[in-house]
Amino acid sequence: MSASTAGLVSLVGAGPGDPDYLTLKAVRRLREADLVLFDALVAPDVLALAAAAEHVCVGKRAGRPQTSQAAIHDAMITAARSGRRVVRLKGGDPFVFGRGGEEALALAEAGIPCEVVPGVTTAIAAPGLAGIPVTHRGVAGGVVILTGADAATCAAALDALPADLLTVVLLMSLGTRSDVANRLLARGWAPDMPAAMLLGAATSAAWTWRGALAELPTAVVPADRDELPGTIVIGRVAALPLALLGMPPGVTVSAAELLPVAPATHLP
Amino acid sequence: MSASTAGLVSLVGAGPGDPDYLTLKAVRRLREADLVLFDALVAPDVLALAAAAEHVCVGKRAGRPQTSQAAIHDAMITAARSGRRVVRLKGGDPFVFGRGGEEALALAEAGIPCEVVPGVTTAIAAPGLAGIPVTHRGVAGGVVILTGADAATCAAALDALPADLLTVVLLMSLGTRSDVANRLLARGWAPDMPAAMLLGAATSAAWTWRGALAELPTAVVPADRDELPGTIVIGRVAALPLALLGMPPGVTVSAAELLPVAPATHLP
Repeated sequence: MSASTAGLVSLVGAGPGDPDYLTLKAVRRLREADLVLFDALVAPDVLALAAAAEHVCVGKRAGRPQTSQAAIHDAMITAARSGRRVVRLKGGDPFVFGRGGEEALALAEAGIPCEVVPGVTTAIAAPGLAGIPVTHRGVAGGVVILTGADAATCAAALDALPADLLTVVLLMSLGTRSDVANRLLARGWAPDMPAAMLLGAATSAAWTWRGALAELPTAVVPADRDELPGTIVIGRVAALPLALLGMPPGVTVSAAELLPVAPATHLP
Repeated sequence: MSASTAGLVSLVGAGPGDPDYLTLKAVRRLREADLVLFDALVAPDVLALAAAAEHVCVGKRAGRPQTSQAAIHDAMITAARSGRRVVRLKGGDPFVFGRGGEEALALAEAGIPCEVVPGVTTAIAAPGLAGIPVTHRGVAGGVVILTGADAATCAAALDALPADLLTVVLLMSLGTRSDVANRLLARGWAPDMPAAMLLGAATSAAWTWRGALAELPTAVVPADRDELPGTIVIGRVAALPLALLGMPPGVTVSAAELLPVAPATHLP
């Protein structure tokens, strides 16, 4: 079958959670879709926008065995060849640790028309919604985004970066946060360097921990939240007064519509 | 005046250009706005969504003198105190080199209700729309985002990072790209390390250059494009087959709806 009669595959970023952070193009693609292949972390409210589509979970959570990457490629290719409009829906942005590149390559090699619909990446939005700007003039002149899922690259980058030069954002790293914190401390980062854990950002289950780098290994994530997608931020931006909310470390906060209006305060 | 009677200031990310990449919440805030304070790089089509609002450019391009940061703060605070709904509209995401943190701090100190509406950051979307995933398993296990506007931080980060460990994305760095390339080459990066310049991503004026790191200093940006917002990518992800499009370096491409469906090819 020629590419001209094949359906389109859209690699769509679902953003950090709430459908409010979907792009107009993502919404349009979802509404037009015949098939949505979604990761387990995509919010049900987002999925519901694809009212006319078949929904297939290909993620690895919720007790299901993970669908292999090859099987995901096959499902996209088969559906597109039968003329279906396929949305491959991923949390955040499809090209930030989402294997979107691998899927685009597989589609290109199969001659299937493919587009990417960039999304709001959780790496930047989860901190932002908690009042933490990943860059801030005079505090952090850049940001590095890493993942615990690639431990070797993560370790090499953390070893190389001077302490307190860039904001460090880590995705899929809740389980390896002790390694990360201990590695930075061993490299001379200050024990009281501000840090934050942001779980379920932009959802009603949002949970935030703020504290110091030295406390990160022992900070307790509630059992009912440890399946939520998590983002870790390490850097002085995590203690800017707009981020403090006057909260002690360990406080649970809901996803608030408004940032705090309290005047600047000091870390507890 | 108490905060409860003050208008809301929304720090809104406009995304990379095309209104298609606005979030639903950004669109709603624009439609409800009484006043939009926008940066010069925000696309007219985006601004047009705020049909009921007064539009004030506070950017530094287009031959105008730059509005001082203090004057921007004053304008937001004064408008909010008079009960107006203010959108502070920034290209990309408000917290990625957008001074959004400074503005949120100023608003918090003045007791003005403030929210952030995260956007699709150009740092990730401009490469993505050109078929360049900023992360890719086995190629780049992370990404560092820097700006030529903070030359000291940029230089320190580039000096510290091992060659070819992370994808390097640079914003506001077209004018300093020789320094960047020469610094990386001096640190042992391969002269043929793939690189790309992406100007005006997600606009009809989009222009892409692809080549090697050693060619970056002398690559010519057309005079009619050098006012466009630009993103530079350095790393092997810039040469993934899905990114190549079969194009020679220096080719001009328009913002395409579809990624290429050509099979994998080799770099020219």
